[in-house]
Amino acid sequence: MTNVATSTHRISAPAAAVPTGSTGRGHDDLRSRVDRALATFLHQRRATIGATVPEFAEAMDSLIDLVLGGGKRLRPTFAWWGWRAAGGDPSSPESEAVVRAVSALELIQGCALVHDDLMDDSPRRRGAPTIHVAFAERHRRAGWATAPDRFGMAAAVLLGDISLAWADDMLRESGLDIEAAARAVQPWQAMRTEMLAGQYLDMLSQVRCDEDPETALRVDRFKSAAYTVERPLHLGAAIAGGSSEIVTGLRHFGTDLGVAFQLRDDQLGVFGDPAVTGKPAGDDLREGKRTLLLSVGLRRARERADDASTKLLRAAIGNPDLDEDGVSSVRTVLLRLGAVAEIEREIERLTARALSVLEATGIDAVAKERLVELSAVATRRNH
Amino acid sequence: MTNVATSTHRISAPAAAVPTGSTGRGHDDLRSRVDRALATFLHQRRATIGATVPEFAEAMDSLIDLVLGGGKRLRPTFAWWGWRAAGGDPSSPESEAVVRAVSALELIQGCALVHDDLMDDSPRRRGAPTIHVAFAERHRRAGWATAPDRFGMAAAVLLGDISLAWADDMLRESGLDIEAAARAVQPWQAMRTEMLAGQYLDMLSQVRCDEDPETALRVDRFKSAAYTVERPLHLGAAIAGGSSEIVTGLRHFGTDLGVAFQLRDDQLGVFGDPAVTGKPAGDDLREGKRTLLLSVGLRRARERADDASTKLLRAAIGNPDLDEDGVSSVRTVLLRLGAVAEIEREIERLTARALSVLEATGIDAVAKERLVELSAVATRRNH
Repeated sequence: MTNVATSTHRISAPAAAVPTGSTGRGHDDLRSRVDRALATFLHQRRATIGATVPEFAEAMDSLIDLVLGGGKRLRPTFAWWGWRAAGGDPSSPESEAVVRAVSALELIQGCALVHDDLMDDSPRRRGAPTIHVAFAERHRRAGWATAPDRFGMAAAVLLGDISLAWADDMLRESGLDIEAAARAVQPWQAMRTEMLAGQYLDMLSQVRCDEDPETALRVDRFKSAAYTVERPLHLGAAIAGGSSEIVTGLRHFGTDLGVAFQLRDDQLGVFGDPAVTGKPAGDDLREGKRTLLLSVGLRRARERADDASTKLLRAAIGNPDLDEDGVSSVRTVLLRLGAVAEIEREIERLTARALSVLEATGIDAVAKERLVELSAVATRRNH
Repeated sequence: MTNVATSTHRISAPAAAVPTGSTGRGHDDLRSRVDRALATFLHQRRATIGATVPEFAEAMDSLIDLVLGGGKRLRPTFAWWGWRAAGGDPSSPESEAVVRAVSALELIQGCALVHDDLMDDSPRRRGAPTIHVAFAERHRRAGWATAPDRFGMAAAVLLGDISLAWADDMLRESGLDIEAAARAVQPWQAMRTEMLAGQYLDMLSQVRCDEDPETALRVDRFKSAAYTVERPLHLGAAIAGGSSEIVTGLRHFGTDLGVAFQLRDDQLGVFGDPAVTGKPAGDDLREGKRTLLLSVGLRRARERADDASTKLLRAAIGNPDLDEDGVSSVRTVLLRLGAVAEIEREIERLTARALSVLEATGIDAVAKERLVELSAVATRRNH
């Protein structure tokens, strides 16, 4: 069950390194505006519920810290540049409503992170204990009744739920005009379903030990590409009222770029330098994530009747005790089989196709430049 | 961690016994219309996602079975009669949109049931295994990799999430006109937050062994009254564009009735006849639910310095091994302390106040009659 969450975590440069871009208001960059919109919304909501159920408001603080405490704001960034690409005017009065609307994507992400960390039983996130771990610990320290882990799980379920519900509320209250709000509905709805479907498929492919590259690609397509790039771009372009040519162009660009982004992530999961990625190498392997990289490795081993490599790969995938030597052997085998090179070619092919579609789509020039920059960040990073 | 879910389960007469009422279209009662609206929406959604992620569509079937497979449709019923009370015309063309809008409440309930059964680790729901149990079992039967329980948990988290997300989608796509949809926003948003806050407070009061009657009442207020009666009535009245006098009257009525309903539920949880309720008596006790009934019992024991009763009650609450004799002793103590009589008086007081508010509110006469009927069902039932 690796996921959106983990994936995102791994692209991470320090937050400032993602060029969210100036929004046309001097030094007031997109990231600050998104952070401010989220803080305003969350603190208002906290105050409202705090008046009657202060216990829940207090629990809420853990979610608020998580949402405000980090992340690259990738989804709002793509959505914003989708809006700009389709002609959204950053100096217009409605730009504030657009910032609020695209910021709502971070609350969906809040739910994805909290629920995903629970499903994966991940201990830490954004430099702090994960929600289910923190609430279990709170239970233990207070010496409360019944099982601490069950309390931690329940808190994570409910805080993830409220984040998902509030994402909708924040979009609804963003102040978009009625027509723009109506246009936002379809990409917004599709994105949430695709994200959850992708998560389920990812999890299922792990328990089934599914080695089919087609399954791995579908997971990448829905869980990463649609949720992180394609639908955010689509959402932004829809809000701007972009033509169907622009929407289609951005969606194709986003799908290819999003899959390439995930393939880079998968490579870093095995080959990344822990000193740069900030995560131990091989976690994808230990968690049993069925990446395209591994599927291709297994396919190539089979084609060559290389049983030793097949055996080595199968023994490594999903082995929670895999050590550094084990990871190193997997690296050697994947390189020797040519799987790494095949994935690199696929990243190049997808990125090139994404960029050529972008080039051919008649979008705003500033936005085009920024999207080209974001493509490079997403696919050529080493962290 | 008893909950919305469990509570609802217990009010259950056979479904047909709840007078959802004719909707003014001959024999086509509200229940059938709600069921049909849900079936149409869910099957459409299933088909859409099934085209790309059939694995998720298949998982979805368990959620669809749960949502379509039972339940009293209490929330849509209150919302419908809130709409009627505020002047909604059942023979108008918009009544179909209203049915769809109020049916969306059942998808919130779908999330509440799935997530709640997970948090409580309940084995069965509506005559079938709960989602987390069913998926763990599926995993076991298939002999898949990693822990079956973790897979069951993940499936329940994701299916609950999709139900919550789709509730919003269904409301949005209900076809309400723009003004009605805008008026629906506030009660809809408040209800979801209050439900989750009430769930959290309920859970927290259990692990903290909170004996304060005020906490028990707040749990009843948010988890039951607001979520099940008050906000559904409010939602319906808002959709109809009811005056603030009508909205306020219905909300007061709903709050009192909703709390009375929950107090009846708590009494049945300890005193109900399993042959009639369909549930073993004493489950609330075993789960450690801090009901007002128990709080009052403990307060009365303290006031009388009746240490033996205090000790007996404390030993029973949250004891998973409590047997029939143990439950019987709790009954005797609660009766002797006068806690049962005090709660009965409170149910009577709240119901009388609810009905007098209803009487004084200038609402549609047919709706008034139906709401009086629903009050009786909710507070005088033996199951």
